Order: sequence, then C-alpha cells, then structure tokens
Amino acid sequence: MKRGTKPAKIDRLEPKVRRGLIVVITGNGKGKTTSALGMALRACGHGMRVCIIQFMKGDLYAGEWDGVKQMNCDIELVATGKGFCGIQGNPYPWEEHRANAQDAIDLAREKIASGGCDLLILDEINNALKLKLVDLEQVLDLLRNKPPLLHLVLTGRDAHPEVVEIADTVSEVREIKHAYRKDIEPQPGVDY
Amino acid sequence: MKRGTKPAKIDRLEPKVRRGLIVVITGNGKGKTTSALGMALRACGHGMRVCIIQFMKGDLYAGEWDGVKQMNCDIELVATGKGFCGIQGNPYPWEEHRANAQDAIDLAREKIASGGCDLLILDEINNALKLKLVDLEQVLDLLRNKPPLLHLVLTGRDAHPEVVEIADTVSEVREIKHAYRKDIEPQPGVDY
Repeated sequence: MKRGTKPAKIDRLEPKVRRGLIVVITGNGKGKTTSALGMALRACGHGMRVCIIQFMKGDLYAGEWDGVKQMNCDIELVATGKGFCGIQGNPYPWEEHRANAQDAIDLAREKIASGGCDLLILDEINNALKLKLVDLEQVLDLLRNKPPLLHLVLTGRDAHPEVVEIADTVSEVREIKHAYRKDIEPQPGVDY
Repeated sequence: MKRGTKPAKIDRLEPKVRRGLIVVITGNGKGKTTSALGMALRACGHGMRVCIIQFMKGDLYAGEWDGVKQMNCDIELVATGKGFCGIQGNPYPWEEHRANAQDAIDLAREKIASGGCDLLILDEINNALKLKLVDLEQVLDLLRNKPPLLHLVLTGRDAHPEVVEIADTVSEVREIKHAYRKDIEPQPGVDY
C-alpha cells in the first residue's frame, strides 16, 4: 500500500484581529466540561494563561484536578462547589450551595479584574444559574464587562437564553447514548 | 454575604468493574476534538497513558500539538493528515489523503497491539470514514478487537451509524451559533 508523506508545508493561522470570545457549551450529553478542558490544553500550547473555576464540583474527585497539576503552563483550577445541588444523596442545603457559588462568582470577578488569565473557564455556571445559586445579572455582568481579549467559556446544561444571546459560539451537546444507561459505572479518565 | 465552606468530605468514585469505553463525539458544532483533548487531560490526572492520532490534521498548526508537550504524563500526539480533503484550498489529491489516513489506521492498530495506551483518541476518524479515506470494516475491526480495558474515542462529523451502534457513549455536538458566522476569525486557544 502507498505510504503517506508529510504535508508540503505547515500553515499557521494568525487572526488579523485578536478577540476574546464568549463560548457556551451546553446540552445533556457527555462532553461539556471535557470540551472546556480541551480548550485549556490547547491554550496552554499557545502559551496562554488559563483559569478554571468549577462552580458545582468539589465534593467528588475529578481527574482534571490532578491533570492540570501535570501541565507546565500557567494554569489554575479552583473547585468551589459542593456537588450537584438537589441531586439525590447530596447532603448540603441550597443556602450552602448558593454561598459557594457566590464565592465562585467573586473569584471570577477577581480573576477578570486582575488581568491574570487569557482563558477563563466557568465550569457548570449554567447549572448554577438554573438552580439560582447565582443570579442572571451577575452572569451577564461578567460577560458585559470582560476585557476584550479575554476568552470566557461557560459550561453546563440549560444555558440561559440571554447568555446564549450574548455569546459568540454556542454548542449544544446532545446525548445520543450514554454508557450509564447500560449500567456501566463511570470510568476514570473518561467520565471523571 | 455568607461565605462558602469546604465540603465535609471529598468522595472518590471507583468502579467495581473497570471497562474500556468506546466514545463517539460527532456533530457540526464546536467541541469535538477539544472534548477528546479534555479526556486526555483528565486521563493524565489518573496516571493513564494517552495516545492521540489525528487523521485529517497535520498541515495547519494546532495549539494541542504544543499543549501535549507541556504535560508531565505519558501522552503522545501524532498528526498524520494533510488537512481536510475536499475543502477549498486544500491542494492534495484524494489518493494522498487516503494514503495518510491508511498510515493512521496502521498506527492505531500498532498502538492497540502494543498495549501501550489506556486511552486512544482517533481524532476526525469519522470524517476520514465519510470521505472513504478509511473503510468501514477497518474502523469496525478496531472497535471489535480493542482490549477490554482500552478506552477508544472517535471524533468528527458524520459518525457512521454502525460505529454509533457499537459505541457505549455517543454525543452529538450541535452548532447553535459560531463566531465565524459573524466574520470573527479563528482565535488561538479556542478554535485551534
């Protein structure tokens, strides 16, 4: 069989106008947080500074907590949450989830004000908004006042229509099928 | 305002039965390759060995090429392609794309046979199959003969129904909106 050869040359995109994008990854399927983490990896390749704030997560170990520690780049992950509010088995009252989500919003504001990151990921903020752990005005305020070059990524189900309206790029990740429906337990490296 | 507190304890999932999953990320929206890259980051956090084979990519710089180099874990990325076959401006004939994609399939087989990775990402293989750069039987053969604990992730638009049928988890990433439709150029760290 004929073997492939290298491309004659490797091109490199360079936008004439640099612009910080607002990206929303929503929907009920697998691949929202992971998609944001992939942008983090990609941004690291470009020498960009990355901040990840996890709104709902914090009470259940996730592989990305150690994954980011293994990256030789300016990347920080803060898990401020106490798990998914209202999900069976979660022991914390709404008020506690709200207090934690409010900390996350404060942290997002600080990160934006500090100018210390080029890509800011607000993981599960769409959920936090849906559950009223943060207010629509708080989220819109972050979006409206972000520095022009900062990329802001918002993940989680049930993205608010006004957030979708302001965003530049929005993807809905739809579940076609999921292993857990076949009673396959969550697997490390793929599911968490 | 009341400040949040740490969770009382941090739980850690540990599946009773470990199982290598077949995950397909398809659809026309942004977030397929990035989702796979996020799984790579997550898997690194678990100390897993990761191989990424990019089928169509290779003629246009992507941030992940340098991103993976900055990870202190057992991760390898090989871009075997010459860009998107049939896309305006791509100078290579179909036969050359086919030869490169066949190399990628051979490499995937080698990686599987070697037992050297726990997570194998076949980036854009769905596209390669749609464009007949690889054959359905070649892809099904990889899926049917994978070791039970190997996770296999297949990305790209237009996933083949027989691939979807065999997979454990399938997500369709739908474009709700995309910055390029507002004539915003691709931005480093987000789009490439």
